[in-house]
Amino acid sequence: MNNALRHLAPPSLLVALIAAGFHNPLVVSLALSASAGLATYTAIPAVKNVFVSHGRAGKDLLKTGTPIIPESMGAIVGVIYIIAMFLFIPVPFISWFRQSQFALGGEEELVFPHTKFAQFLGGLLALMSMLFLGFADDVLDIRWRVKIWLPLIASVPLLMVYSVTYGGTDVVVPIPLRALFGGKLVHLGIFYYAFMAALAIFSTNAINILAGVNGVEAGQSLVIALSIAANDILQLQRNPARIEAHLTSLYFVLPFIGVTIAFLCHNWYPARAFGGDTYCYFAGMIFAVVGILGNFSKTVLLFMLPQIFNFVYSCPQLFHFVECPRHRMPRLDPKTGLLNHTSFPVANTSTLGRLMVKVLQRLGLLRVRYETVDKKRTAIDANNLTLMNLLLVKFGPMKERNLALAVMATQFACSCLAFVIRYLLVQFVYNDREDNRT
Amino acid sequence: MNNALRHLAPPSLLVALIAAGFHNPLVVSLALSASAGLATYTAIPAVKNVFVSHGRAGKDLLKTGTPIIPESMGAIVGVIYIIAMFLFIPVPFISWFRQSQFALGGEEELVFPHTKFAQFLGGLLALMSMLFLGFADDVLDIRWRVKIWLPLIASVPLLMVYSVTYGGTDVVVPIPLRALFGGKLVHLGIFYYAFMAALAIFSTNAINILAGVNGVEAGQSLVIALSIAANDILQLQRNPARIEAHLTSLYFVLPFIGVTIAFLCHNWYPARAFGGDTYCYFAGMIFAVVGILGNFSKTVLLFMLPQIFNFVYSCPQLFHFVECPRHRMPRLDPKTGLLNHTSFPVANTSTLGRLMVKVLQRLGLLRVRYETVDKKRTAIDANNLTLMNLLLVKFGPMKERNLALAVMATQFACSCLAFVIRYLLVQFVYNDREDNRT
Repeated sequence: MNNALRHLAPPSLLVALIAAGFHNPLVVSLALSASAGLATYTAIPAVKNVFVSHGRAGKDLLKTGTPIIPESMGAIVGVIYIIAMFLFIPVPFISWFRQSQFALGGEEELVFPHTKFAQFLGGLLALMSMLFLGFADDVLDIRWRVKIWLPLIASVPLLMVYSVTYGGTDVVVPIPLRALFGGKLVHLGIFYYAFMAALAIFSTNAINILAGVNGVEAGQSLVIALSIAANDILQLQRNPARIEAHLTSLYFVLPFIGVTIAFLCHNWYPARAFGGDTYCYFAGMIFAVVGILGNFSKTVLLFMLPQIFNFVYSCPQLFHFVECPRHRMPRLDPKTGLLNHTSFPVANTSTLGRLMVKVLQRLGLLRVRYETVDKKRTAIDANNLTLMNLLLVKFGPMKERNLALAVMATQFACSCLAFVIRYLLVQFVYNDREDNRT
Repeated sequence: MNNALRHLAPPSLLVALIAAGFHNPLVVSLALSASAGLATYTAIPAVKNVFVSHGRAGKDLLKTGTPIIPESMGAIVGVIYIIAMFLFIPVPFISWFRQSQFALGGEEELVFPHTKFAQFLGGLLALMSMLFLGFADDVLDIRWRVKIWLPLIASVPLLMVYSVTYGGTDVVVPIPLRALFGGKLVHLGIFYYAFMAALAIFSTNAINILAGVNGVEAGQSLVIALSIAANDILQLQRNPARIEAHLTSLYFVLPFIGVTIAFLCHNWYPARAFGGDTYCYFAGMIFAVVGILGNFSKTVLLFMLPQIFNFVYSCPQLFHFVECPRHRMPRLDPKTGLLNHTSFPVANTSTLGRLMVKVLQRLGLLRVRYETVDKKRTAIDANNLTLMNLLLVKFGPMKERNLALAVMATQFACSCLAFVIRYLLVQFVYNDREDNRT
């Protein structure tokens, strides 16, 4: 793309499409998303020297010579997203503002869509908080035990908005279990809020723990965001009662798709920009926000199956049942230029740890290396428990670019599975169409 | 304060007072404010090594030996404030939540105070944005032409909330001018929104341009915040129609007073912590937020007379009508230990600049130094155009601590003047009590 185009595209696109689509917020949202994407695409190379000269840079450990790459670029991605959203907020309410202008001095009472407005404000508040937390974490390396609780606090306004908008905490019980729960609905009350808060904490960290390879954070986030958008569009067709909820979800997720595609152009192998914790927390919170605000948090969780798998799979190491080396990332073999999986030693593992190793091995999720001395076979080490190491074990050493593609393919396959569960299998456990919320 | 007390105070205070005052949000707010203050007081020394080791430190230029002091501590002040506010948000709505629980399944329609909720969300969104902007500016040194527009964008949600809550853009015309405007009210429309947006931009930068001496940013902010709280309490007594607006203002400003007192303990001469742009932007936005949300932005502007004076006084230098040295701060005389004013050369000033110098000199706001060579008197230099240099010119060199006190005293005197204008003089230009909004 040449320079003139890059500089002219955002404003011209914006003006043209806003003018054309003023009566359709979705068109304005699309125009803003494209503009935000182009702005991000232009801004990242423009600011990278500023970031590097102020110490916001890190080594790319998976390249020979470990080049220095500008880091925390999620700050640029996030700020442009937030600006696009701030400019967008008035758009869905324009018809109300026009009405209220005409009614000035009249007696007519106009009903402002308060809950929709609160959804925008609450969602952006949670996102802005995570953008700050991510950037502060990049700059200051905040301790785990401190930062793990901050998304919980950031989700308070979001849960309040949920409560005001929907308030429902009833969950439809699958048909086979209805005898057990004594009815079609079970009232979860406070536990449903606890579930949503846990979703916010999990989402915020989910992208961050499946990270470290060029393009993998933005790649998986893009697939998840596209899945959410696809689901929104499907629901807009199928479910008239839920149009507003899925429109709001689209308004949040479209600009994110725009800025993420632009970021991915610079973050793809070989990366010229890193997102840092800033990008990961921000992207994660997007998914929690649309899930909670759109009241389809369970569907969002289905789209995050790879992240859930990665987290559960990591638990034996995270909670120190087996040894956890400081770095669990794949490593570059300089001779072949391919990434290999890394391993942890199993010799001094506790009994419980050994049991976990056995179970994982039996499930085909762990490759253990043995040594035979004097005819006695001893386990030496096993692959580190991350999705990326598992992919390298299953498919053999591969190039960094291909590993990122493999994670994206896994994400895509899981999204397809999620759609199957959500739209086909659901008929066998629920009467069709009765669960509008899943 | 001993260690045990410092660690036990926040939780115990919190629990005790929340339990006691659950039915009175103001009591909960007071308890949270005190707890937030104590948490800030404890957190700053606890995290300062983390800040310094990650490069968040700066030299104290007004001390001999220019010691290294942790910087950007506004991030801690701001985060603790935001956490306190997030925890507080549900409190004013508890009675509604209780009601809605009892009415579950009933037919009764309950009216949720949507605009009040939107005020909290919109206000916190603007504050969170400025907290991020300030911290990013501390870390990355954002250019002026970029960052000047960001508070404008951050004020969009705030102006939307104003529009939904009040919507009024009519201003009561002072009695002597009514013949001119042809009525008691003048409809400002879009210009009133422009005024509020300008207030947001001005406030955000106002504290930052009256800064640089130990304790001066937090000191002036504290006096302004206390003035706002005093005005709120006065209005709660006098103006039953405006109780909700001034309660909201108190909910925003009380925790700020708490965290600012705590920060001031560490920032007071000799400072052991600097707030950085983070603190200044955050503090400035607090004042814009309460002014806009409480619909008393003109009163807030009255409380900011010293900042307005400082800005207008600085204009000849800021807009380069006269020379503007890179640093306009007072300087330390190592022999006396006193701060002296600094100067700019006036020799090569343009005609317009010379006129400005003359006018300021005539008003007694500028001290020009002359040199007499061959009986010809030539102006050499004049004091830099900042409030602090002017105070040093008027009262002579003084200790850094005393200069901070002098700024606070000026702020206090201006606040008193603002109260006189607001509550006494206003009777001569408006019929009493008819202007609920000023």
